[in-house]
Amino acid sequence: MTDRAYVLFEEQQRARGIDLEQVKKQLSSLRIETPSWGYGDSGTRFKVFRKAGAPRNAFEKFEDAAQVHKLTGLCPSVAIHIPWDHVEDYGALRSHAEGLGLTIGAVNPNLFQEEEYMLGSVTNTDAAVRRKATEHLLECVDIAKETGSRDISLWFADGTNYPGQGDIRKRKAWMHECLAEMYKALTPRMRMLIEYKCFEPAFYHTDLADWGMAYNLALKLGPQAEVLVDTGHHLQGANIEHIVAYLIDEKRLGGFHFNARKYADDDLVVGSMNPYELFLIFYQILCAGQDTDEAVRGTVDNIAYMIDQSHNIEMKIPAMIRSVLNVQNQYAKALLVNHAEVAEAQERRDVLGAEDAVRRAHEFDVTPLLQAIREEQGLPADPMKAYLESDYGKSVMTRGKGGAGW
Amino acid sequence: MTDRAYVLFEEQQRARGIDLEQVKKQLSSLRIETPSWGYGDSGTRFKVFRKAGAPRNAFEKFEDAAQVHKLTGLCPSVAIHIPWDHVEDYGALRSHAEGLGLTIGAVNPNLFQEEEYMLGSVTNTDAAVRRKATEHLLECVDIAKETGSRDISLWFADGTNYPGQGDIRKRKAWMHECLAEMYKALTPRMRMLIEYKCFEPAFYHTDLADWGMAYNLALKLGPQAEVLVDTGHHLQGANIEHIVAYLIDEKRLGGFHFNARKYADDDLVVGSMNPYELFLIFYQILCAGQDTDEAVRGTVDNIAYMIDQSHNIEMKIPAMIRSVLNVQNQYAKALLVNHAEVAEAQERRDVLGAEDAVRRAHEFDVTPLLQAIREEQGLPADPMKAYLESDYGKSVMTRGKGGAGW
Amino acid sequence: MTDRAYVLFEEQQRARGIDLEQVKKQLSSLRIETPSWGYGDSGTRFKVFRKAGAPRNAFEKFEDAAQVHKLTGLCPSVAIHIPWDHVEDYGALRSHAEGLGLTIGAVNPNLFQEEEYMLGSVTNTDAAVRRKATEHLLECVDIAKETGSRDISLWFADGTNYPGQGDIRKRKAWMHECLAEMYKALTPRMRMLIEYKCFEPAFYHTDLADWGMAYNLALKLGPQAEVLVDTGHHLQGANIEHIVAYLIDEKRLGGFHFNARKYADDDLVVGSMNPYELFLIFYQILCAGQDTDEAVRGTVDNIAYMIDQSHNIEMKIPAMIRSVLNVQNQYAKALLVNHAEVAEAQERRDVLGAEDAVRRAHEFDVTPLLQAIREEQGLPADPMKAYLESDYGKSVMTRGKGGAGW
Amino acid sequence: MTDRAYVLFEEQQRARGIDLEQVKKQLSSLRIETPSWGYGDSGTRFKVFRKAGAPRNAFEKFEDAAQVHKLTGLCPSVAIHIPWDHVEDYGALRSHAEGLGLTIGAVNPNLFQEEEYMLGSVTNTDAAVRRKATEHLLECVDIAKETGSRDISLWFADGTNYPGQGDIRKRKAWMHECLAEMYKALTPRMRMLIEYKCFEPAFYHTDLADWGMAYNLALKLGPQAEVLVDTGHHLQGANIEHIVAYLIDEKRLGGFHFNARKYADDDLVVGSMNPYELFLIFYQILCAGQDTDEAVRGTVDNIAYMIDQSHNIEMKIPAMIRSVLNVQNQYAKALLVNHAEVAEAQERRDVLGAEDAVRRAHEFDVTPLLQAIREEQGLPADPMKAYLESDYGKSVMTRGKGGAGW
Repeated sequence: MTDRAYVLFEEQQRARGIDLEQVKKQLSSLRIETPSWGYGDSGTRFKVFRKAGAPRNAFEKFEDAAQVHKLTGLCPSVAIHIPWDHVEDYGALRSHAEGLGLTIGAVNPNLFQEEEYMLGSVTNTDAAVRRKATEHLLECVDIAKETGSRDISLWFADGTNYPGQGDIRKRKAWMHECLAEMYKALTPRMRMLIEYKCFEPAFYHTDLADWGMAYNLALKLGPQAEVLVDTGHHLQGANIEHIVAYLIDEKRLGGFHFNARKYADDDLVVGSMNPYELFLIFYQILCAGQDTDEAVRGTVDNIAYMIDQSHNIEMKIPAMIRSVLNVQNQYAKALLVNHAEVAEAQERRDVLGAEDAVRRAHEFDVTPLLQAIREEQGLPADPMKAYLESDYGKSVMTRGKGGAGW
Repeated sequence: MTDRAYVLFEEQQRARGIDLEQVKKQLSSLRIETPSWGYGDSGTRFKVFRKAGAPRNAFEKFEDAAQVHKLTGLCPSVAIHIPWDHVEDYGALRSHAEGLGLTIGAVNPNLFQEEEYMLGSVTNTDAAVRRKATEHLLECVDIAKETGSRDISLWFADGTNYPGQGDIRKRKAWMHECLAEMYKALTPRMRMLIEYKCFEPAFYHTDLADWGMAYNLALKLGPQAEVLVDTGHHLQGANIEHIVAYLIDEKRLGGFHFNARKYADDDLVVGSMNPYELFLIFYQILCAGQDTDEAVRGTVDNIAYMIDQSHNIEMKIPAMIRSVLNVQNQYAKALLVNHAEVAEAQERRDVLGAEDAVRRAHEFDVTPLLQAIREEQGLPADPMKAYLESDYGKSVMTRGKGGAGW
Repeated sequence: MTDRAYVLFEEQQRARGIDLEQVKKQLSSLRIETPSWGYGDSGTRFKVFRKAGAPRNAFEKFEDAAQVHKLTGLCPSVAIHIPWDHVEDYGALRSHAEGLGLTIGAVNPNLFQEEEYMLGSVTNTDAAVRRKATEHLLECVDIAKETGSRDISLWFADGTNYPGQGDIRKRKAWMHECLAEMYKALTPRMRMLIEYKCFEPAFYHTDLADWGMAYNLALKLGPQAEVLVDTGHHLQGANIEHIVAYLIDEKRLGGFHFNARKYADDDLVVGSMNPYELFLIFYQILCAGQDTDEAVRGTVDNIAYMIDQSHNIEMKIPAMIRSVLNVQNQYAKALLVNHAEVAEAQERRDVLGAEDAVRRAHEFDVTPLLQAIREEQGLPADPMKAYLESDYGKSVMTRGKGGAGW
Repeated sequence: MTDRAYVLFEEQQRARGIDLEQVKKQLSSLRIETPSWGYGDSGTRFKVFRKAGAPRNAFEKFEDAAQVHKLTGLCPSVAIHIPWDHVEDYGALRSHAEGLGLTIGAVNPNLFQEEEYMLGSVTNTDAAVRRKATEHLLECVDIAKETGSRDISLWFADGTNYPGQGDIRKRKAWMHECLAEMYKALTPRMRMLIEYKCFEPAFYHTDLADWGMAYNLALKLGPQAEVLVDTGHHLQGANIEHIVAYLIDEKRLGGFHFNARKYADDDLVVGSMNPYELFLIFYQILCAGQDTDEAVRGTVDNIAYMIDQSHNIEMKIPAMIRSVLNVQNQYAKALLVNHAEVAEAQERRDVLGAEDAVRRAHEFDVTPLLQAIREEQGLPADPMKAYLESDYGKSVMTRGKGGAGW
C-alpha cells in the first residue's frame, strides 16, 4: 500500500508540475534543532509535574536528543541553556555530543533566574547588575567558542510590571550598550539571534516587545545580529508569516523558536493548534528562497529552525518527536506549492485562484513522500511508533522522577 | 489644606445633587477580603523571587493581614487556601484571627497541585482521582464549618492542552456530579462561588472557560451556587462590567477576585492598568443596588469583594494596601455618579450627555472624602505612608527569606 | 489516477477501522444553506466595490444560488433577509425557488438599517421603536409561514458605544419582552435561532455579547429557542469547538453561520484562515452524534449549517462554491476520526496518542472520497472548475454593475 | 467655588514641587488638529446614520471646526482629506480657513475608494494603478504647497484578504518605490507621516501592519519621513506608550491620530474607554521632553496631535469638543507628574513608589486648572455647555440631512 501510495503521489505532483526530486532534496536538507531544556521537566506557575525518566544532567539530555535524531534524521544539533547545562568541561560535553552523532547548537544565556535580575538584567538601573549580565553574555560567547556553536540566542525577560517602574528609554540605551559590548566579542562566524516577546514574565512593558524592536537593535549592532522569531511570542492576531517575509526581505531573519499557542505563550507542540499557519510560514520562506537576490536566498539558507517548547503534561521524548514531525510535515506541504501558478493568479488578479493555489498544496497527504524519504535514509517509516516500541523509552524510566527541569 | 479640600468637595457634590452622607455610609460599609496567599511569595513560571519578610505559616499571614486592616479599616476577613493554610486545629487559627480583629473568609480548595491532578481533578477520567478531588471539596466544607466561613471559592485548573486529549462533554458531566455531591454538604448559609477562566494552566480548553459555563453550572446546582468573577480571567476585549450587570440581574453574582491585567491573567495590583474599568464595574453594581427588585438589591448586598493577586516583584504588605486603596478609590468615585442625570440623558437619547454623566464622576479627586472617612474612623489619613513608617514592616524582615509561597 | 486514488483511500481507511459506507452516507446528507445576501455586493465601512454580475433582486439571487447547488449538491436551501429580499408575493418567490430545485431557508429579520434603530431596536428606550422592531419580528414569522421556513435567525446589532449610554439591565429586559412576544407567534415546528456577537457595530457593549447570553435567553423563552454560532463572532482566543460541544450537550445548539476570520468579524471564506478549527468543530459535533442520549443526537441532527460571509473582493458565486467545498472537505476529514481510538488513548491517559488520533484524520487528503461521492451523485468532480468553464458565469455579467448589495 | 478650587489646587501642587507656571505654559501651547471628515456623517459597514446638520462641503466643515476652536482654544488647524475636500481653488479654501481663524493642517490622500484600488494602490500588481496612486500622492504634495500644510498623512488600506493573494515582498518593494518618488517631491519643510494599522479593511495581511514596518520605511525614505501613531490601530494588548517612547527615542515619531477603542479600530471619542492609557502616552512624551538630547526634545516639540474618529451615533460638533477636552484633560494630568520623584523611586528600586508617583498625578481633578487657563484666554469655562447653549448648534440644523460623509 505504501509503495502504491508513493507512486500515485508522484504522478499527482508531476501532473501539477512539481519537481519531486527537488522537493526531496529540500526535504532531506531540513534540520531542526531541539533544545536541551525540552527534555527536562517544565510546568506552569501553578505546578511543575515531575515525570519519571527526566534526564538528570546535560549529558543525559543529549542522549535523549540523540534518540530523536536517530529516529527522525532531522535533529543533528541541540541547543544548550547556560547555566542549566553548565558543565565543568564543555569540551567533554562536545565530545559526548559528537559521540552521539550530534553537535551543540545555539547557546542560550539565562538572564532571568538570579535574584539580582528581578527588576532587569541588561536594563537594570544598577550598573553592577548590568555588568554581571554582560559578563554572562560574554561567558556564553566563550562557551560558544568551545562548543563550536554559531548562534547565541538572546531572550530577555527584562521589562516592567507597572507604569513608572522603569525608564523605558534609559533601559533601551542600557540594553544597547550591553549588547554592543557582547557583539564585539563575537567571532566572525558567530551570530546573535535577538528574540522578542510581547509579554510574560513582564506584564506592563517588555523591553524587546516586538519584531520591530529586535530588528532595530540588530540594525544598530551590525550584520551579525539577526532576529529570532518565536512563534508563541506575538499578540493575538499577529500575522507571523508576514513578519517572516518582511525580515527575510531585510536579510535579518536569523531563526525560529517553534511552538504552538492558542492564547499566550502556551509553548505547546508546534503545529498542534493551527497547522496551516506553520505551512504559511514555510510558504513565505520558500517564496523568498526563489528570489533573484542572492542575499535574500542566503538569508533563507541560514535560518536556524529550533524547537522551544515546554512540555508540561506530555511524555518528553515523544513530544519532541511529534514536534519535529509536525514541522517536517508542514514543510513538505509547503514544498508542493506551485509558485508559478500562484504568481499567474496574482497577475490576473484572481483572488480565489491565488488562494486556491496555496491552500491546495496544504491539502495533500504527504505521508507517502515522507515515508519514501525516510526509507531512502534508512529511518523508520513511523518514527513515533519506532520510539514507543524501542527499549530506550523503558530504560530511561530507571532514572526515576526528580530529573532536571528548567 | 485637608479640611478646606473636604469642605470644597462637599460643596461641589452638594451642588451636583449628591447625598454625601449616603456616600459616606456606603463607603464605610465597603469590605474587601484579602487572601492569605497574597502575603506569601509568588512568581511566574520563570522564577519565584524570594522576599525577605514573607510569612512562614498561616498564623503569620493573618498577622500581616491584620496590619492591612488596621491601617485601612477595609479588610476584616482573610481568605484561606487549603492545603497551603492547612493547620491541625482550625479552631486555633480562628481564635488567632479573632484575636487580631479578623475573621476567616472564603475557603479555597486546591485541586491543581497534586500529581494525580495533572490531567484533571473533578474531570479526570479516573474515578479514583475524581473521588479524591470530591473528598477535598467536602473537607473544605468541613473546614468552612469550623472557621465560620460563608463562602467556598472554587477555581479549577481543569482543562486540556490538546484537541482530543479529553472528552469535553464527559468532563462536563463529571464536574457536575462532583459539585452536586459537594453542594449537598453545604449548610444553608453557605455558598459555593464558582470561578471561570479562559485559559492557563490549560492551553486548549478549560472546563469552566467563561461566565456562561459557571453560571449554567450554578443554575443546575441550586440557589446556593453563584458565580465568582476574577477580573483577570477574560479574553482580551471582554466587557467585564456587562457580565457583572448581567449576573446581578440573574441574581447569581456571588463575588469578585480583584486584580489587574494588561495581557493575560497577569495578577497585578487591581486598578493599576485600567482604573476606569474598575470604576465602571462599581458603577454597574451601584446601578443595580438601586433596583426596585429586592432580590437584585440582595444580590448586590452579598457580593464578596476579594483580592486575588500574585505580587511577584512588589513588597507584599504594601502591595496589598495599595490594592485595597485602589478599590476603595474607584468605589468612592462610582458613588459620585448621579444616576438620575444619567437616566435623563438616556431618556432623551443624548449619547454624549449620558457618557459625560458617568465619566465626570470619575474625574473627581476623592482624596478629601477618603481622608474624612478615615479620620472619622480613627484611621491614618495615608495608610501606605503609615505602614512604611511603622515598625511592623521592619520587624517582619527578621523572618528572613524562604517564607511560604503559593 | 482518480479511481486508483479512491481504491487506495478505501484500503487505508478500512485498515484504520473506518466504515467508509457510513462515512459516505453521512457526507451525502450534509446540507449547507447559502445566504441570498452572499450573492450581492458587500464591503467594509471604507468602500463597497461594485461587481459586474451582481444579482439585482431576490429572484436573481436564487438563480445564482441554484448554480451553487447544481454543481456541489450541497446547498438546496437559501436563507433570506428581510427587507433586502422583500417581495410582494412570497408565494411567487417560493415557487421560483422550487422551480430551481431550491427551498427557502432561514428568514433573517433586519433590525439595524432603519434610522430609528440607531440607539437600539428591541432594546431601544423608546417603546414605539421597540414596538416597530417587534412588529418586524412578527412579520418575519408570517413570512416564514409563507415560505415554509423552519428557522428564523436573529442577529441584533443592539448595543452601546459608551459607558452610561444605555441601561444594560433594562435593555436586557426589553429584549426578553420583545422576543417573548415573537416566541408566542411561532408555529410548533419553527425555531428561533439566537445569534450573539462580541462587538461591531456596537463598540462598548453588545446586548447579546456571547453564547452565554444567547443561551440564557433561549432557556427563558422555551424549547423552540436555540443558539446560533457565527464562527466570526468571538473574542480572540475563544475555543469555539468547546462552546459547540457545550451547547449540544445542553441541547441548545440550533445552527451555524460559517465564515473565517483572523482578526474581528472578517467574514472571509470559511476554512481559509484556520481550517483545522473548522475540522475540530465538526469533530465535536460528530462525537456528540454518537451519544447514547437520543436528545443529544437529535440536536446534532437538527443543526442548521449556514454560510454567512461578506465577499468584498472575491467573485461572488465562486466564493460561495469555495466556501461550501471547504466545509464539505473538513466535514469529510472529521468523519475519518476513529472515535474508539481516541477514547482508548484518553482512557490510558495518553495525551499525545489522543491528540494524534484526532489530528491524523485531518491529514488525509479526502479529494478521492469527495470525487467518488460526486460521481455517484452525477455531480462534476471539480465543481469550481465546472463553474468557471460554464456559460452561467459569463451570462450573469450581462447584468452589469450596480446590483443588489446588503 | 471655582476660585477657591484653583487656590487649593495651586497649594497642593506647590506642596508637591510642581511648577504651575510651567504647567500652564505647556498647557497653553497644546494644539490638537481636528479632521474635516470628523464633522461629516460616518458609520459602520452596517449603516451610516444620516444626521441633520452635517456640513455639505469643505467650507462648512471649516465653519464647524472654527466653532470647536473658538470654544476650546485648542484646535487652530484642520486636516483635509483629498478628494473628500477637493475644491477647485485651494487658495480660496485657505482664505476661508484663515478668515475663520484657522489654518489648513495635514493633507490626507485617499487611496482606497477608487474601483482600481480594490487589490491595492501603491502595492497593486498593475503598474498603471501604482502610477495613478503615485500621481495622487504627488497631487497631495502640490495641494500641501497651496494650503501651506507641513504634513502629509499617509494611511494605506493596502493589504490582502487571503494567503497567496499577493506577493508580500513585491508589494513591499512597490510601496517603497512609490513613496520614494513622493518623498523627492516634498519641500524641505514638509513631512510624510506614515501610518500603520494591524487590520481592516484588509483581513489577512496589511502592507504596513505595525510601527516597525512604518518606521523601517521611514528610515529608508529619509529624515522627512516619520511615523504616525493611530491609537486604534494596534492589536489587543499592545503597549502604545512603549511604542511612543521608542519612536521618540529614535526621533521618528511624527504625530498621532487620536481615538479610543475597546475592540478593533472602533474610532470612539478619545479618552472614553481607557483614559489612563492616554495619560500614560502623554507621560512618556513629557519624560522625553525633558531629555538632555536636543534632537529628542525637538521630536517632542514637533509631534502633531490630531483627532481621527468616526462619530457614528454622536452629535458631530459636541463629539469633537468632548474629544479635544479629553485630550487636554489627560495632558494636564500628565503635566502633574513629578519626574524627579519617579526617578528617585526607580533609583531605589521601589516598584510601588514609582508606580504611585505616576498614578497619583492622574488622580488630581484638573478642572480648576483648566478653568483658570480658559479664563486667562477668554474662553468659556465649560466649552461643551457653551456650545450646547449657543445659536450655532441650532443654526446648523437648517442644513438638513444628507450632508457630506466620508
